[in-house]
Amino acid sequence: MGTEGHAETVRRYWAAAEARDWKAFAATLSPDVVYRCPQTREVVRGREAYLRFNREFPGDWHLVVDRVLVDDGGAMSRTTFTVGGETMTGLCLFTMDADGLVAGVEDWWPEPYERPAERAHLSELET
Amino acid sequence: MGTEGHAETVRRYWAAAEARDWKAFAATLSPDVVYRCPQTREVVRGREAYLRFNREFPGDWHLVVDRVLVDDGGAMSRTTFTVGGETMTGLCLFTMDADGLVAGVEDWWPEPYERPAERAHLSELET
Repeated sequence: MGTEGHAETVRRYWAAAEARDWKAFAATLSPDVVYRCPQTREVVRGREAYLRFNREFPGDWHLVVDRVLVDDGGAMSRTTFTVGGETMTGLCLFTMDADGLVAGVEDWWPEPYERPAERAHLSELET
Repeated sequence: MGTEGHAETVRRYWAAAEARDWKAFAATLSPDVVYRCPQTREVVRGREAYLRFNREFPGDWHLVVDRVLVDDGGAMSRTTFTVGGETMTGLCLFTMDADGLVAGVEDWWPEPYERPAERAHLSELET
């Protein structure tokens, strides 16, 4: 399974999620998929639990895929999520199993914070 | 410039930063490099300003590169940073110019947050 396949799998994963096509979504997943959100310490183990996590995830969320990058072990996506009036960037690292299915998802949701005063002399602030 | 070159450039970028070898670091950068930290809205424009940003960045920081992924336009790295007793994950998206030099850096520093109650039934919490 080459790296091109990893990118293709991640694009199918997100297209299926956006379409709420849970059969197509499940087809991208290893039976033993493990999801982690390191910021909250959430972990979800196994395809059924992970399908439910996505199906029941709160809010009428929508996404656009901005970028998909690959390495030998899997892929990474940058997505723009909108839910309600809010827009967020999602950064997601994937590892694939030997069949090219998603075996690991590491999900990151960076939130705004104040620029620390100690480095304020080193940058401008964009409006 | 192929995608393999992008990964190699990012590995040289981080090795030079960790070594505080600013000449080698500069050699990975486009003269017109633009750095952005979307979470704080920090922006740094141009190689000289960006060298200073890194050289004078507060703290005795050290890093390990966990993963480098690529696409046609550039690369992305996952790094583990330690500064003082703290450990953080850095996620950095790079775009390269026609010469394969770093022209854009989009830097993300996700911080811990509480799992929202409305999705608490969908996951476990890891210790």
